[in-house]
Amino acid sequence: MLSVNKRLMDHPPIITLLTDFGLEDEYVASLQGVLLSILPTVRIVHISHAVPSGDILRAAFLLERTYSYYPSGTVHLAVVDPGVGTARKILAVQTDKFFFIAPDNGLLSPIFHSSANINVYEITNKTLFCATPSNTFHGRDIMAPIAARLAGGLDVSEVGPQIAAEQCVQLKSPACCDEDGKITGEVIRIDHFGNLCTNIPLTALSQEELKDARITIKNFSIQGVAKTYGARASGTALALADSHDFLEIAVANGSAAAQIGAAIGNQVLVTKNSDK
Amino acid sequence: MLSVNKRLMDHPPIITLLTDFGLEDEYVASLQGVLLSILPTVRIVHISHAVPSGDILRAAFLLERTYSYYPSGTVHLAVVDPGVGTARKILAVQTDKFFFIAPDNGLLSPIFHSSANINVYEITNKTLFCATPSNTFHGRDIMAPIAARLAGGLDVSEVGPQIAAEQCVQLKSPACCDEDGKITGEVIRIDHFGNLCTNIPLTALSQEELKDARITIKNFSIQGVAKTYGARASGTALALADSHDFLEIAVANGSAAAQIGAAIGNQVLVTKNSDK
Amino acid sequence: MLSVNKRLMDHPPIITLLTDFGLEDEYVASLQGVLLSILPTVRIVHISHAVPSGDILRAAFLLERTYSYYPSGTVHLAVVDPGVGTARKILAVQTDKFFFIAPDNGLLSPIFHSSANINVYEITNKTLFCATPSNTFHGRDIMAPIAARLAGGLDVSEVGPQIAAEQCVQLKSPACCDEDGKITGEVIRIDHFGNLCTNIPLTALSQEELKDARITIKNFSIQGVAKTYGARASGTALALADSHDFLEIAVANGSAAAQIGAAIGNQVLVTKNSDK
Repeated sequence: MLSVNKRLMDHPPIITLLTDFGLEDEYVASLQGVLLSILPTVRIVHISHAVPSGDILRAAFLLERTYSYYPSGTVHLAVVDPGVGTARKILAVQTDKFFFIAPDNGLLSPIFHSSANINVYEITNKTLFCATPSNTFHGRDIMAPIAARLAGGLDVSEVGPQIAAEQCVQLKSPACCDEDGKITGEVIRIDHFGNLCTNIPLTALSQEELKDARITIKNFSIQGVAKTYGARASGTALALADSHDFLEIAVANGSAAAQIGAAIGNQVLVTKNSDK
Repeated sequence: MLSVNKRLMDHPPIITLLTDFGLEDEYVASLQGVLLSILPTVRIVHISHAVPSGDILRAAFLLERTYSYYPSGTVHLAVVDPGVGTARKILAVQTDKFFFIAPDNGLLSPIFHSSANINVYEITNKTLFCATPSNTFHGRDIMAPIAARLAGGLDVSEVGPQIAAEQCVQLKSPACCDEDGKITGEVIRIDHFGNLCTNIPLTALSQEELKDARITIKNFSIQGVAKTYGARASGTALALADSHDFLEIAVANGSAAAQIGAAIGNQVLVTKNSDK
Repeated sequence: MLSVNKRLMDHPPIITLLTDFGLEDEYVASLQGVLLSILPTVRIVHISHAVPSGDILRAAFLLERTYSYYPSGTVHLAVVDPGVGTARKILAVQTDKFFFIAPDNGLLSPIFHSSANINVYEITNKTLFCATPSNTFHGRDIMAPIAARLAGGLDVSEVGPQIAAEQCVQLKSPACCDEDGKITGEVIRIDHFGNLCTNIPLTALSQEELKDARITIKNFSIQGVAKTYGARASGTALALADSHDFLEIAVANGSAAAQIGAAIGNQVLVTKNSDK
């Protein structure tokens, strides 16, 4: 089988970075230096470095929502790695279109769940690491060198032995429950605008059902799923479909998190046909 | 007429991004993925993603202060869009040197005010959008695809009908008033250093007038416009010309915002010939 | 002698940026525009823009920890410049592999200390500046134009007269003291994770000494230097070697800064052979 990079990369190589490093220290800059030293033509794109420290689920969520927008052949390097230096594995994953490199701690769960053709490798080939890897920064010393080489055309089977995806840590996101005309879910992320993102998909609801639904969170009750933030008066709580078609609770020109006093994990209830 | 891109772009395409998305969510990463998937050679430059949520005037200010430093042919994509999904238009603007893409909410006001040769188009050509645009993220689903295609050489007239600039929303920045030897303006931005940026231009004042002026804000009075931050003792409030030749109030090695307790909108008074 | 750029740059030019500008204003965007207008092919990499305002030592620390990861020929542009517009010099420094541009305020101290072959130039050639430099933003008006031209192949001797490194401001980082089996150092940086970085190098200690050492900070006492964050129970304070082999104090899955109540400058004591 031809490697993804050989088959698909008809453009300058791209590596995305997703970490919990923040932007005030040397960590992101060191990663970038390693990538550029090995592959000077690489184009580095930042997904985010503001994942809360050690928050693997948040990183997985951000990866899930972004990776597929990138061109074929993109290498997604994700380093949220509280177990750095311990026995946890480091993975290189190849799908039909992308490579992923991350510690084996559940960060790649959405990739395992959504990709049909997937090859998983444990990164063990020390000749590809930096000369004397530290125990505290495998992103710089092991993952970045591998990412740069994959982006540069290295066959992924060179990084170490292939393993079964079932052997890898897979985290479950909170599930939502749809029965008896009620969908019960929860707030899974509060975004920069104070919008409440939930795990309740709206794709299965008809236009009629969306209009008639009543959405309840804490002591707030919202009638109907709106189409836009601007559909309600400024300062009013509203429900709408986010840009991935999940239920989002917002406040027009305001912060739902502040106005509702909501937190991640708060229950959200959708009652269909609320007038019946 | 030749399009800007055909005439001027003798370098790899550049798209700048200016948003209120913050850096902790998937929004900026999704934009970048769309741009790179359509135009893999594009070079993405971040103006800022820290515009306060929905602050169109701040975004307009940042755009005004930065766009002209970029090479000819640069596409400036600005998304501060509280009206996303509503009937507000989306604009593509062509000037002698640049393209601008933004919602029609006043964000492009400084471009309308300062550019002589300007062509404004309403973006309506759905064949250029992503397959099924959401109602909540037109930056990703409509504006980014258009930006990538303009940067790649698409003639701007393809995006939709040309409209008159006068039809577009134009916001006015606070004006300052110069009479009877007194200039009255206000604080329009507090920067990262705590410096107070005002809307008072200093270009019309002579060296003598600058030296003799008295600057008043709240209960602080400053004698003369200094040349540098270092011209006053550490911890001292001072006035000087910012890098666009507007009056700035600062504290040497400190924060004027904190020391003066200033806020955006505070009145600033310049009394010329203060000893008379 | 051939210039660094002629000898070493076999890849697209790279300029790194390190500033205290923050990301919310127009400053970083203006710098980037100037660089791209002069050298449209340049690739800009951000070290950090979150240096605390005017904190030259922090900028020097970040530069020291990152510059050497970059490819030969990289131009490192560092602007933490509280003395902008005053008589302080602006420097261009050439080493075996890199260029550095910064104000002469000590920011380049680690480069002066660690580089053997070094040529220092005072930037004075006004023909290379922007047309009418401001007094308040030499990063944009003087340093960026020089950086772009050096990255583009300008011989560094064109920027102004060569001067002796001894003439330049050199700051000393806090030193640590090793005597009578005790090493006394201090906290020199608290990172994004709340880890306490110290100035105590661990390279001279044997595995036995690392295991037996007792580390004391404030009223916390830690037995032994661990290998990984995961080697101690969650919530436990631990000591380990950071990724540059200096002593770091951390809390497994937590913040040492918060748990210990530590601040920059706090004394850290390492007692070797603590059981004797």
